[in-house]
Amino acid sequence: MTLNSNKNKSRHLDCEDDSLALKKKVTIDDVFGPDLHIHDPHAKWLSDNELLYRTRDGDVIKFNADTRERVVIVPNQLFDRSRAAKYQVSPDMQHVLFAFEVKPVRNPEETWPLNPPEVHEAALQFAGWGPRGQQLLFIFENNIYYKTTIESRAIRLISTGQEGVVFNGLADWLYEEEILQTHIAHWWSPDGLRLAYMTINDSLVPRMEVPFFTGTPYPTNLEYHYPKAGEENPVVHLSVVSLNGPLHTVVMKKPDDPRIGEYYITMVKWATSTKLAVNWLNRAQNNSILTLCEATTGVCIKKHEDESDSWLHRQNEVPLFSQDGHKFFFTRAIPQGGRGKFFHISMSTSMPNTSTDILQSLTSGDWDITSILAYNHQRNLIYFLSTEDDPKRRHLYSADTIPPFNRCCLSCEFKCGYVDVSFSHNMQYFLLSCKGPDIPSVAVYSTEDRQKVFDVETNERVNSTYYNMQMPRLEYETITIDDYTLTMQILKPAGFIETAHYPLLLLVDGTPGGQMVTEQFQVDWDTVLVSSFSAIVIRFDGHGSGFQGTNLLHKVRRKLGKLEERDQLEALRFISKEPYIDKTRMGVYGRAYGGYLATLLLSSEEFTQLKCGTAISPITDFELYASAFSERYLGLKTDSRVYTISNLAHRAGQLLEKQYLIIHPTADEKVHFQHTAKFINHLISEKANYTLQIYPDEGHFLHGDGTQQHLSQSLVNFFEECFRVPEVLTEDEQEDEDDS
Amino acid sequence: MTLNSNKNKSRHLDCEDDSLALKKKVTIDDVFGPDLHIHDPHAKWLSDNELLYRTRDGDVIKFNADTRERVVIVPNQLFDRSRAAKYQVSPDMQHVLFAFEVKPVRNPEETWPLNPPEVHEAALQFAGWGPRGQQLLFIFENNIYYKTTIESRAIRLISTGQEGVVFNGLADWLYEEEILQTHIAHWWSPDGLRLAYMTINDSLVPRMEVPFFTGTPYPTNLEYHYPKAGEENPVVHLSVVSLNGPLHTVVMKKPDDPRIGEYYITMVKWATSTKLAVNWLNRAQNNSILTLCEATTGVCIKKHEDESDSWLHRQNEVPLFSQDGHKFFFTRAIPQGGRGKFFHISMSTSMPNTSTDILQSLTSGDWDITSILAYNHQRNLIYFLSTEDDPKRRHLYSADTIPPFNRCCLSCEFKCGYVDVSFSHNMQYFLLSCKGPDIPSVAVYSTEDRQKVFDVETNERVNSTYYNMQMPRLEYETITIDDYTLTMQILKPAGFIETAHYPLLLLVDGTPGGQMVTEQFQVDWDTVLVSSFSAIVIRFDGHGSGFQGTNLLHKVRRKLGKLEERDQLEALRFISKEPYIDKTRMGVYGRAYGGYLATLLLSSEEFTQLKCGTAISPITDFELYASAFSERYLGLKTDSRVYTISNLAHRAGQLLEKQYLIIHPTADEKVHFQHTAKFINHLISEKANYTLQIYPDEGHFLHGDGTQQHLSQSLVNFFEECFRVPEVLTEDEQEDEDDS
Repeated sequence: MTLNSNKNKSRHLDCEDDSLALKKKVTIDDVFGPDLHIHDPHAKWLSDNELLYRTRDGDVIKFNADTRERVVIVPNQLFDRSRAAKYQVSPDMQHVLFAFEVKPVRNPEETWPLNPPEVHEAALQFAGWGPRGQQLLFIFENNIYYKTTIESRAIRLISTGQEGVVFNGLADWLYEEEILQTHIAHWWSPDGLRLAYMTINDSLVPRMEVPFFTGTPYPTNLEYHYPKAGEENPVVHLSVVSLNGPLHTVVMKKPDDPRIGEYYITMVKWATSTKLAVNWLNRAQNNSILTLCEATTGVCIKKHEDESDSWLHRQNEVPLFSQDGHKFFFTRAIPQGGRGKFFHISMSTSMPNTSTDILQSLTSGDWDITSILAYNHQRNLIYFLSTEDDPKRRHLYSADTIPPFNRCCLSCEFKCGYVDVSFSHNMQYFLLSCKGPDIPSVAVYSTEDRQKVFDVETNERVNSTYYNMQMPRLEYETITIDDYTLTMQILKPAGFIETAHYPLLLLVDGTPGGQMVTEQFQVDWDTVLVSSFSAIVIRFDGHGSGFQGTNLLHKVRRKLGKLEERDQLEALRFISKEPYIDKTRMGVYGRAYGGYLATLLLSSEEFTQLKCGTAISPITDFELYASAFSERYLGLKTDSRVYTISNLAHRAGQLLEKQYLIIHPTADEKVHFQHTAKFINHLISEKANYTLQIYPDEGHFLHGDGTQQHLSQSLVNFFEECFRVPEVLTEDEQEDEDDS
Repeated sequence: MTLNSNKNKSRHLDCEDDSLALKKKVTIDDVFGPDLHIHDPHAKWLSDNELLYRTRDGDVIKFNADTRERVVIVPNQLFDRSRAAKYQVSPDMQHVLFAFEVKPVRNPEETWPLNPPEVHEAALQFAGWGPRGQQLLFIFENNIYYKTTIESRAIRLISTGQEGVVFNGLADWLYEEEILQTHIAHWWSPDGLRLAYMTINDSLVPRMEVPFFTGTPYPTNLEYHYPKAGEENPVVHLSVVSLNGPLHTVVMKKPDDPRIGEYYITMVKWATSTKLAVNWLNRAQNNSILTLCEATTGVCIKKHEDESDSWLHRQNEVPLFSQDGHKFFFTRAIPQGGRGKFFHISMSTSMPNTSTDILQSLTSGDWDITSILAYNHQRNLIYFLSTEDDPKRRHLYSADTIPPFNRCCLSCEFKCGYVDVSFSHNMQYFLLSCKGPDIPSVAVYSTEDRQKVFDVETNERVNSTYYNMQMPRLEYETITIDDYTLTMQILKPAGFIETAHYPLLLLVDGTPGGQMVTEQFQVDWDTVLVSSFSAIVIRFDGHGSGFQGTNLLHKVRRKLGKLEERDQLEALRFISKEPYIDKTRMGVYGRAYGGYLATLLLSSEEFTQLKCGTAISPITDFELYASAFSERYLGLKTDSRVYTISNLAHRAGQLLEKQYLIIHPTADEKVHFQHTAKFINHLISEKANYTLQIYPDEGHFLHGDGTQQHLSQSLVNFFEECFRVPEVLTEDEQEDEDDS
């Protein structure tokens, strides 16, 4: 990986050298400055040997791995001129699509506005190239438009769209955030002759209003459909329109199965040019059917069924199909003994001339496949990422698809703990993105001999800065809870000595299936607390976390918060036994679900040593949160007792002696400001003290100018204050005090 | 006044006695507890000698000043049973009107619901007795209904009402808050034969939406018409309906005068049974016409005109008419020399058989009449309250209405600085409410000899508590600014010693025409700061304040904040020269306009010694505030530069090093939460630190259960923290620190 140079030492060793005093401490300005900025080149394979990526300077480059040739496809000046941040190059390399404008690569003066004649003054919601030539798709007013080439007439493919109510080809709020994890809800067939798109009808879903305070003399409201727990959900269906000849649209038929009544469509993927894989999940999220649908008829045949006593996890992951479509690979949870199920690769092979499929498990063990990457039919090889080495790591593996399914780690020898990988079309090369623990980098490798072909991004500039600063020492400890050996990540100040006393900050998330302890590189506001204010920061994954078996994961069902709280308290007890921890100066931080958990911890009856805590956009009441999330983990709203128990309201009275900071953007579209407003009402009636910060008109992800930096500084200030040792006045100061 | 007992010493003398150590310090629980609660009996004259009032225990009593007889009219149990807080006894003493229910006094089982047949499921907006017998008026859906007696049929007097849009007999938001200062916009003629009512049409006024977060799964919005500066105002007219015989309604005609185009009706008062005094004010609020309108024809005749280079002040005060209607008395601003105009009594006498009136000024001097109380025609005497003794006091005076207008103070000999008075119908008795500086009390006096007839309320219980607590010492100092000798009020801890160092809290309001320094009794959160945390609290009235001449008042016009800031800074400079003030621990507090001023002061460039400040519901931008207020002081919106200059936004960058707490109820209908949201956006872009507290779904006046107490505790906590001297650790603590 980052093989270039002098950094053979691990991060914490590097920090222990004698020159510590010469190294600068990290500030928030550093964190947000250019010298510690990790550049993501967004590299993407175009063919067997060609890669497209963007340099740190802003040029879009096409790289040929065979010839090592680099060609500038879009010069950075073109970005400046169009003031566009996002781009998409057409498959024929002739055009680039910028946010809201299409510019030809060669003659930057010529632009094609996309507005079709049917549309007046509507905002473009989406535009993207199809898989062939200059095929262009765009969406206005929730209707899909299509152009065969840049210069041809736009054809409207569907006209049922209603702004904010009926969505075609794009996700509504729920599907974007909780089901598909993307706003794109359309899928091109590989030959570009067909387009599958979802229609999401929100007309029965109750509306949420979010006030906007700035910009106009009178505040305005954003209204959108948001199903809270137990409310009407969007109604969806999936259509395929064929673009070759007269438009012809077929709706895919839901498989006839009593277990799937009200349903979500969680995954769509083209298997061949005419067949679609579709995953159907019931509302309770414990039954799913993976089907293969015939695009021309809409008939969907069951390929796999899944059921869970708890909830079905990882339902939006796409299967990988062999080129002929006869085989496909997908992950499913398979029992592995005492720790429950782990996710492994299943291979489904359809038998010629029969309707039966053979299902084989290619991998096994108490670790998870995290991603299936590529299948080499000729060599009977499957490539994937897994946690086999360690749950906090990701490595690239290959496995034979024929018995005895020999498995081989391809990235374990690299000096990198956490990789992401994509293969070129014929798998001759792969692009490996190293996410940590050292400074991230991206490079192209030859699959054959795993030799590096080209450094796409080395983040050289960060390298030279990073190692000249007092960066935290990264350590791990293990704790045993209920026979699980769980890992705690500990960040210690560079100049850490055992005999000193340090304040402690616990960072929590706890979203079911999530993971806090990984080897990914991170420089954030907590780095500042460690470096400049000598705090010790810990992260810990307990019950409810992912990648450690479904027993650990599913135990939190219908009692969200309970085990997560217990496990994090255990982690706090464990670390606070260390003599170097100052037990009078301990705090906790979390966001969204983590804000819920942070508040539970701060208000815990059992462990009252936490002095302060911050919750950003906390979920305070799961009844107010999205149906698909709340119902997945707490069950349908029919049993409202479960919801009442998990409500934070009960805890308001236990925050009386704490320093509690809530931060909530007022236009948070995911965890509504309402969560904080309701909880504050409880705090007020319990006479509890609190402080609040808001980001007016900012959404959940705080994209506003300078907002992230302001937030980071606020967090540093809050914990610095909480962690401050009461000052002892010097004699001089005492005199000043008396004089004044 | 509070002659009963041992309190001949002034408050601060009383606190200096030796037993200080034995006295308890004041806490927020004390402030809100029953032992320091001042009971207001809401006493009201019924006749020449009968008074109605409510005791501390809740009984409603009729007191006869001639016989000294007391009769329980409504026993407190009846309140308990109807769970009503508000009551109104009918003129015939036979019935009492409770909130939403009428109960006969004698047989509590019988109740009359008021809903008329025209109305379904609408909420009662208002109900009240007329001046005679059992006349009853009530309002549903902005329409006025009338009953001659309890048992008679309800007649609808007007049907143009539209909920939230067209108001009959009640004020819309603007008229209630900024013009009439009451929600009642109807007036009975003295004989009960006619009713005048205002119709306020808000259909062109833009709507404000206020979100409500609690109580429902999805937040709801309250929409109401609120004209911000420069927006369309409500359109009003005044009608009189005669109730004797068939209904007959006449609209009062606006006087034909080019200076009054778009107008406000600021005052309505019946002069006789058929004549109405009405005050018309132009939108710019610098021209007004006082008219006398003939109720039967609607013709309004000018009785007085007023004009100001600045704005017209005190436009909603009612004139006092002689019984025959030939004379009336009103206050108007009259030049008194260097300090501009002061408010004095003018007497207008209409000459029989001519259309001319004689106008005479009965009083003069550099002090203000604050209220005209009664006129005794037989004795040619007028009774009134004024600031002649001192601007911070109110005393009862009489003056002859015939030259040389001899004047006489009737309350100056009482041990009371701030009185409020009402006379019995024939002026044989008066009710004197003493508001301070000692513990408030209410008593009936004989006008003839000014001897006390009866103690209505002595607040005995508070007496015994108050003098056993460490209450602040009240002092006054004067500062000279621009030739004005202005008074500062200083509260010092009971155990004050010159050689100690105290933190300082400045309380500001600054609303034009307002007054902070008065001798009114007050026990509030700032009392706690003085008593329990040894703070010194000051109040100071500078430019823009009332009762010290119009020059001081009007100087702030079109530059709101500028002089107020300068003057308060001058006060701070003055007090901080005192050796007993710790200049490193100074803070400021204000609410609404005071929140604006507090923020200006904290962010002041000139005087940077303020460490912390709190603004509750601050006005941060006058463009977002009510038209009638902003335009009165800043001029019409046509000159928007004036508005831009007074915007707090410029100051955001000067709050970087300050501790700044903003508190804003989210459903504030007067100063919208928008003010705070917009200002916080500026703070964020300037990277300024701030903390916020909200009261979810609470309105401007924070009426919610326990809200006031939570607020008070928050204020005490904030300033206690700001005023805390950095601790010096004792050796023991240091050891603990090391052990942990």
